[in-house]
Amino acid sequence: MELDLLRELSVPSDSKILMLVIDGLGGVPNETGRSELEQAHVPHLDRLAQESLCGLTVPVAPGVTPGSGPGHLALFGYDPLTYKVGRGVLEALGIDFDLQPSDVAARGNFCTTDDAGRIIDRRAGRLPTEQNAETCALLREISIPGVQVFVEPVREHRFLLVLRGEGLSDRLTETDPQREGKEPLPVRALDADAEPTAALLNEFIAQAKAKLAGRHPANMLTLRGLAKHPPMPSITETCKFRAAAIAAYPMYRGLAKLVGMTVLKTGMTFAEELETLRAHRDEFDYFFIHYKPADSAGEDGDFQKKIRALEDIDGFIEDLHAFQADVFMIAGDHSTPATIAGHSWHPVPFLLHTQSFARHDGTEGFNERACANGVLGTFPAKEALSLAMAYAGRLAKYGA
Amino acid sequence: MELDLLRELSVPSDSKILMLVIDGLGGVPNETGRSELEQAHVPHLDRLAQESLCGLTVPVAPGVTPGSGPGHLALFGYDPLTYKVGRGVLEALGIDFDLQPSDVAARGNFCTTDDAGRIIDRRAGRLPTEQNAETCALLREISIPGVQVFVEPVREHRFLLVLRGEGLSDRLTETDPQREGKEPLPVRALDADAEPTAALLNEFIAQAKAKLAGRHPANMLTLRGLAKHPPMPSITETCKFRAAAIAAYPMYRGLAKLVGMTVLKTGMTFAEELETLRAHRDEFDYFFIHYKPADSAGEDGDFQKKIRALEDIDGFIEDLHAFQADVFMIAGDHSTPATIAGHSWHPVPFLLHTQSFARHDGTEGFNERACANGVLGTFPAKEALSLAMAYAGRLAKYGA
Repeated sequence: MELDLLRELSVPSDSKILMLVIDGLGGVPNETGRSELEQAHVPHLDRLAQESLCGLTVPVAPGVTPGSGPGHLALFGYDPLTYKVGRGVLEALGIDFDLQPSDVAARGNFCTTDDAGRIIDRRAGRLPTEQNAETCALLREISIPGVQVFVEPVREHRFLLVLRGEGLSDRLTETDPQREGKEPLPVRALDADAEPTAALLNEFIAQAKAKLAGRHPANMLTLRGLAKHPPMPSITETCKFRAAAIAAYPMYRGLAKLVGMTVLKTGMTFAEELETLRAHRDEFDYFFIHYKPADSAGEDGDFQKKIRALEDIDGFIEDLHAFQADVFMIAGDHSTPATIAGHSWHPVPFLLHTQSFARHDGTEGFNERACANGVLGTFPAKEALSLAMAYAGRLAKYGA
Repeated sequence: MELDLLRELSVPSDSKILMLVIDGLGGVPNETGRSELEQAHVPHLDRLAQESLCGLTVPVAPGVTPGSGPGHLALFGYDPLTYKVGRGVLEALGIDFDLQPSDVAARGNFCTTDDAGRIIDRRAGRLPTEQNAETCALLREISIPGVQVFVEPVREHRFLLVLRGEGLSDRLTETDPQREGKEPLPVRALDADAEPTAALLNEFIAQAKAKLAGRHPANMLTLRGLAKHPPMPSITETCKFRAAAIAAYPMYRGLAKLVGMTVLKTGMTFAEELETLRAHRDEFDYFFIHYKPADSAGEDGDFQKKIRALEDIDGFIEDLHAFQADVFMIAGDHSTPATIAGHSWHPVPFLLHTQSFARHDGTEGFNERACANGVLGTFPAKEALSLAMAYAGRLAKYGA
């Protein structure tokens, strides 16, 4: 459903909606012919699936492998093809940087250039993170009239650059030439309004080049994904509910904050997240709770570890069920099959559990094949929110 | 399929399409775990489903509960999010009022105000219908220069107001303050073009107030859903067929007329509707025939009565089959689960029966769960028309 329609139809209610996102949930079979979920011993997920509406979500579009941003935005009800989050913004979210709507953020990479200024290592030998921090400290000395400059280390050769000031634009090109043997490109404005911002960034780059000269291996930098915080309608206003996010990792907190959720302070373990959930039951109507280890194991290409990560979260399903949300969804932002060792385009298992008005389908369990035959079929992930709103009694009739 | 594409591809043919709309068809399980359709003894529907293409239709969008207008427009091939029918227009259709394209229609409610003009009963004690008619007769004495005024009783406190004249606009606000203890609001124009219409309506309201003063309980009125007949492409032109509508209730006749169908005179029972269908076989190519009792029983929250309504229509399926349409569809405009006692967002069982070129799926019966596993899957209701056109040999190839 489009957000405008959702805003038109949504009505307040005292019902509760809980969405558990198992990051990288979906998989594909390995040589045994069965996927991670099919091999995992997940009796609580299986039993819940039998009493739920099941299906598979398509995060962005058929065949499209989503990043974490689009995958989560879709589950939050935002069409990821309409609401785009630039790489610079994601980098900021990923380190809990408090990005303002007028800021321009960029992902910076330290690199190594030769005497002629040509890049000979685009990642500066994957610089140790301490050396990165040191180099960033140096760059923080740069001063540019009219704007505030933030330089924050991320990891290895990656850092975050943020310009803060009035009238900045992100209609800008990247400086990474994408190939070694070439010089970094200047920032170019994609329209006239962006000319001043391009000039400020080129000034930053010139000063940085001077400061880094003679250092090794990080004697230069490139800027990618120059982006502003995208204008996002607030999920709280659209849905007329109080929404809370519980996530151990900063990027997911950041994505939730982008759409207007209240981010709750929590710990690094899922047990702590669960405790946070329980402690705030009365203050919110909608809860997003995030579980990361399934994705990490999939990214590592470790099939057995992903199975264990799924079995671990299975141990919390009873507790989440006992929270007694009127609508309890279990979803994934994308698939991360261990055999691929990365995100993939495969539709993602989904279940919606509700006390009332449900046509259960007797799905046999919670896995890719069983969910493909669920009553919800294969559907766009962005529809999950409106389905949940309907079952939570939070949508008025459309038309007379 | 978009109507423009349908218009481009449609070709004449001598094939016949029949669509039975079982109003409020879909349901959800009650405490037995089975829905109305699953509990009903409907052997003819079940057998037909086994020889048909089955699926579930989504009337508007996932999670959206449609009114009767959007539900039917979708089955007629019109995207209900694009083609909107205002409440005033539906009220006019509901009493067979012959609304013209330039008319502005409003749903009127008689109400009771106190001496200070504040509403103390928004429905005037649900006025007896005879008293409504009497009050409407009084309002018909109102004369406003430049426009014709129609005031027609509907039921209880509800009436229809229509202004007929040149240059009227429906970009207007409603006068119902939605709360007791408040005075009715004036009509306000939402753009400059609507100013004259707002002035005419406020003049009507002022005269009505004077005429109703001292009466009880209906001493005032409010106007809602001010709307004009929306511009609608004609289904007859789009599909190059002659389309007929057979419906006992005026609102469904009105909706069919809105999209350009010929409305056939018929009786109040389905047996009479069937007779009308047979009598006009040669004159038309497409027939929409409407069955109301399933919706009424669902609205009443009467599970057993809805079962009986479904069993009653089952008794007519052989007759409808014997009509030998090339394509015979059975659809619902929306679900009306008895457990909800109102319309709902649940996808609606659908079958398409055709003699030729069908991939039957051996669906076990005609109900929500069996149709969820049908070959058509879960699909937007507005696609039903183009599917029918294809199976009726009425669509040319797209592209070379």
